Amino acid sequence: MHVNFVLFEGLTQLDMTGPYEVLANAPGFTVDFVAKTLDPVRCDRGLRFVPTQTLACAPPCDLLVVPGGPGTDDAIVDPEWVAFTRRQGLGAQYLFGICTGSLLLGAAGLLRGKRASSHWRARELLSRFGATPSDERMCVDGNVYTAGGVTSGIDMGLKVVAALCGEDVAKLIQLQIEYDPKPPFPGGTPKTSEPAVVERYLAMSQARFERRSAAVDRAAAAMP
Amino acid sequence: MHVNFVLFEGLTQLDMTGPYEVLANAPGFTVDFVAKTLDPVRCDRGLRFVPTQTLACAPPCDLLVVPGGPGTDDAIVDPEWVAFTRRQGLGAQYLFGICTGSLLLGAAGLLRGKRASSHWRARELLSRFGATPSDERMCVDGNVYTAGGVTSGIDMGLKVVAALCGEDVAKLIQLQIEYDPKPPFPGGTPKTSEPAVVERYLAMSQARFERRSAAVDRAAAAMP
Repeated sequence: MHVNFVLFEGLTQLDMTGPYEVLANAPGFTVDFVAKTLDPVRCDRGLRFVPTQTLACAPPCDLLVVPGGPGTDDAIVDPEWVAFTRRQGLGAQYLFGICTGSLLLGAAGLLRGKRASSHWRARELLSRFGATPSDERMCVDGNVYTAGGVTSGIDMGLKVVAALCGEDVAKLIQLQIEYDPKPPFPGGTPKTSEPAVVERYLAMSQARFERRSAAVDRAAAAMP
Repeated sequence: MHVNFVLFEGLTQLDMTGPYEVLANAPGFTVDFVAKTLDPVRCDRGLRFVPTQTLACAPPCDLLVVPGGPGTDDAIVDPEWVAFTRRQGLGAQYLFGICTGSLLLGAAGLLRGKRASSHWRARELLSRFGATPSDERMCVDGNVYTAGGVTSGIDMGLKVVAALCGEDVAKLIQLQIEYDPKPPFPGGTPKTSEPAVVERYLAMSQARFERRSAAVDRAAAAMP
């Protein structure tokens, strides 16, 4: 089972590194990180990752994993990323979009008629790509696995491994990464966080949402 | 608030990238990744990270973060890593050990007389460094924050941010990273995973445990 992770500038690294920890521990899984060049790729917070393959040379994959982050807004209107995602996505057995990574799957025309999830702040935008937005933390529609924001990629990684390798393997990895989460506070979604926290986040993310919405419009108009 | 992440070969990357996502989103936090050289550092599963500072040139930090992983076994008997961790740890306001990263804090003599946690499989080894092992997922003793295995670093990252910046900041980050975890299976600790899963993990990790135990003995004998 070969996995290609999409690695674009400005991704939110935990979207990628969370599921990677789960998938890379599954027996028989091999992984590539695919970027435009082999130069290190910078995440939205500055940490740099070394790709293993370029868009031009990446091998086909069984599972294509697309993380999200602020960089999504550029990737969805970038013909190279859209073409790569479409080409690899059509050939892959499974698709896995985490956080706003599902927008890139959408921009590549891979979510038409599918239910899909995304970061809660961006979820509604999926409809512009012909998908039905789902507010599930883990959304499965056929071979398309989409997760909510950032950390939901860990939950979904376990679900993907369970589907591909069996529950026993997923449970073993869960024990290895000691995944019995105990967030110090309740919250983490608009429904479970305190209203004041949600309001503050909505306010501080408004400008980004508007930029993203405009990018999604452009991407939807060019959708293959 | 300056944060130095210790970046040694063979680390378990989610030990680092989970808390990094939380800490790097806290206002006023700056982050360095410190390695022996500026060459990329490879995690236990292959992904490579680009350090930002070397052991020799790293600035002092307010918060020193030590991830774990198989590479811990080499780091705790490596005089350069032990000396760096001790020097930086003594100067830092706060220490944060994730997973078996607490063993490096221990090897640096920073856990004497402290309660501390670690990955459940390695926890008992902390006593050889003069610490009292705790089976808490998040253990706080004075300025020393230690977490259990891998994903517990995310929970603990939020607790650290709450302590340093206030709960409001931590709750905002929790909502941003949509951290309302829903593992697809119960489990994740020896108490909550099915007995057969625990037995299988114990069997497959026995050789590693013995190597680690031997390394801890050597490290404890050389503890500054």
